[in-house]
Amino acid sequence: MSAFPTNIPEKTIERLSEYRRTLLSCHRQGITHVFSHVLAGIHGITAVQVRRDLMLIGFSSDTKKGYDVGVLIDFINNILYSENSMNIAVIGMGNLGRAITKYFNSKQLKLRITVAFDIDPAKVGSVIDDIPCYDMSDFEDVVSNNDISIVVVSLPTKAASQLVVPIVNAGIKGVLNFTSAPLNFPQGIVVENYDITTSLEKVAYFVKANEENNNQ
Amino acid sequence: MSAFPTNIPEKTIERLSEYRRTLLSCHRQGITHVFSHVLAGIHGITAVQVRRDLMLIGFSSDTKKGYDVGVLIDFINNILYSENSMNIAVIGMGNLGRAITKYFNSKQLKLRITVAFDIDPAKVGSVIDDIPCYDMSDFEDVVSNNDISIVVVSLPTKAASQLVVPIVNAGIKGVLNFTSAPLNFPQGIVVENYDITTSLEKVAYFVKANEENNNQ
Repeated sequence: MSAFPTNIPEKTIERLSEYRRTLLSCHRQGITHVFSHVLAGIHGITAVQVRRDLMLIGFSSDTKKGYDVGVLIDFINNILYSENSMNIAVIGMGNLGRAITKYFNSKQLKLRITVAFDIDPAKVGSVIDDIPCYDMSDFEDVVSNNDISIVVVSLPTKAASQLVVPIVNAGIKGVLNFTSAPLNFPQGIVVENYDITTSLEKVAYFVKANEENNNQ
Repeated sequence: MSAFPTNIPEKTIERLSEYRRTLLSCHRQGITHVFSHVLAGIHGITAVQVRRDLMLIGFSSDTKKGYDVGVLIDFINNILYSENSMNIAVIGMGNLGRAITKYFNSKQLKLRITVAFDIDPAKVGSVIDDIPCYDMSDFEDVVSNNDISIVVVSLPTKAASQLVVPIVNAGIKGVLNFTSAPLNFPQGIVVENYDITTSLEKVAYFVKANEENNNQ
């Protein structure tokens, strides 16, 4: 196996994921080659940024036709995915947990949401959107038996802080947290906090800033 | 009215939104003062960064007890919110649209989700999670009658590109897009694209990178 680059910046990883989606869309439309400035235009960045990102993962293209779409998809897949698939659990199967599960598992990725957890007796023991839903009290056993390495936290915010200890004890390696409470974990556990409120407040601020600038 | 600062960087706005949530939580617990290093620890950043962000919005604190929680909340509110409330519409009332509406409207913010749109006849004309759901064909009229300035797009990805023209025509000022197709709008419309897949792929990459580093 060739050396896996472990030092790629977070923002580059985000963009690689985004390029990959656009490339897959090109591929489905039968487009075989794409120029850096076309990718850049779609994603609202500069062509220099695109080329820099791809250079970081060791990809370059000297063809006059632009990047080979199929080859570049494979290249990005090798960065984003393990050779082995990674299993994901969702904690909290309310509207958000179900939306994430359906959305994510509808894509053909090596990452799969394979189990869910909830505390609602109406959900525990049933199969929701094709995945089994377990009681939180069985968390450690289920994680171990299903080789889960990542959890998605989509519970009400006030319940989220109680999850830190079980997540650490179960040996989870990565957490995507959708509650509005930032969760702090020991070093070695990857955490991504995302709060919808922040995104909406950001849009609202820049709408207001645009209005103020137009009024000046 | 004092001058509204229109040039605050995106990342600072995100952090102000996050500080505000933590400060509100402090306030509810009866905590009246907080040090920059405490805020920094909760959010996983440096105290220097916290102080720099607050300096950018003209806030400083020379008290030995740290920042006054109530005053700082008011200060951030003035940056994040208009004096007038801003109305938001959700396009697509599936699981994700409903999760966002419930989550967001459960908070006491000046930003409110006030109407929804869908194409499903079972939803159109009904009230879902306390807001009325309209047909997409009435988009322009409803936006105008309800003074909507921001839309949240939570449709299936393949339907999203058809929204660009109606959104522009209706005079929408800001878009929060949850589909995996980046939407491009004319300058002057604020767009925030968020894709769950990117967040999960990022967590997966850093989990894999940690494993590789541990194996070396």
